[in-house]
Amino acid sequence: MTVLSYPEPVTVPARQARAVTLRAGQSVRITDVAGGQVGDVFAYNADDLSEHHSAAHTRTHTARLFPALGESFVTNRRRPILTYTADTSPGVHDMLIAACDPERYAAYGDPGHANCADNLRRAVTELGYAAPLFVPQPINVFMRIPVADDQTLSWLEAATAPGDSIDFRAEMDCLIVVSACPQDHNPINGARPTPLALTILPASSEENRR
Amino acid sequence: MTVLSYPEPVTVPARQARAVTLRAGQSVRITDVAGGQVGDVFAYNADDLSEHHSAAHTRTHTARLFPALGESFVTNRRRPILTYTADTSPGVHDMLIAACDPERYAAYGDPGHANCADNLRRAVTELGYAAPLFVPQPINVFMRIPVADDQTLSWLEAATAPGDSIDFRAEMDCLIVVSACPQDHNPINGARPTPLALTILPASSEENRR
Repeated sequence: MTVLSYPEPVTVPARQARAVTLRAGQSVRITDVAGGQVGDVFAYNADDLSEHHSAAHTRTHTARLFPALGESFVTNRRRPILTYTADTSPGVHDMLIAACDPERYAAYGDPGHANCADNLRRAVTELGYAAPLFVPQPINVFMRIPVADDQTLSWLEAATAPGDSIDFRAEMDCLIVVSACPQDHNPINGARPTPLALTILPASSEENRR
Repeated sequence: MTVLSYPEPVTVPARQARAVTLRAGQSVRITDVAGGQVGDVFAYNADDLSEHHSAAHTRTHTARLFPALGESFVTNRRRPILTYTADTSPGVHDMLIAACDPERYAAYGDPGHANCADNLRRAVTELGYAAPLFVPQPINVFMRIPVADDQTLSWLEAATAPGDSIDFRAEMDCLIVVSACPQDHNPINGARPTPLALTILPASSEENRR
């Protein structure tokens, strides 16, 4: 695996995605720069992209709709890939909803709109990997999809303030893709899509244990 | 697509799976023969197995954890593939939990146990298709996974009585795989795994509109 070094945070421009590689033990902090912005997060085994985070396996592993702080996300081979280690946001995240894709915006009558599925494919290939054959269910950080008693879902504006962040520790060498979701046909990203920032935290950093 | 004809119900033996093909407009009835048995259901476009039912896209489509009667399940291309047309069971089904697989039983210390992922691969290849590269999140009929207010999940015994059934109408020509879940390390299948039965209902049948 090629380990990339990022002394400064990586900006994920609004409506775009960026991919980074992490060694096991390193962490990534995802910061919502302006607040109210959802990030679609995908995690792959850096040595074999056929192994990736799986929401359905993670729910089975944690017996929750979304892991609690300190719990792990697992792959389609039921191995931990990321651990949810820190969170300065209101702690509301989603793992039920598919990444937006060309078909999603075509249905809104807005073909050609930026979308997280194309963003994923572009970011992975920019890092020299083959494009994934399908789009896994993402971890949707900061995304507010409450589940009502009757099991209906709602799409609400993200509740994050500027600078709120969430940290994930890599449990294996992995490729992480974060898309600053371009959705602007529903309220999830507030007034408009805005950037995110990624900071790689070394395994030994105090910062990593805040 | 080769259309198979089943004048009699197809038995899905306990712990095994069977695949059938449906023309658009035909329906399949899944009957819980002895009661208390979960079925893992997978649905593919019969002409292109890269298009298949997607739980994450279906939740986005219906804004529910599981479709209500009369609603449709959609594919990873956001096209309806099945519609939930009839149900004589208590109406409790799951679409959150991954299919059981070799890794699931290895973690129980029971390697080599029958599992729905291997059952899927076997049933698809027995019908002459290439084995799927990955296992989609299934529709788990009769499976009782309540979501508590704190978003925790529980694995409870299926509440179906002998002979209870659920019907799905095909919205495109499709390949349907049903695995009689072999899980016996938790209570979802009651005392022991038992068979299911599949009945193909023609598009024009009165029976299809019960």
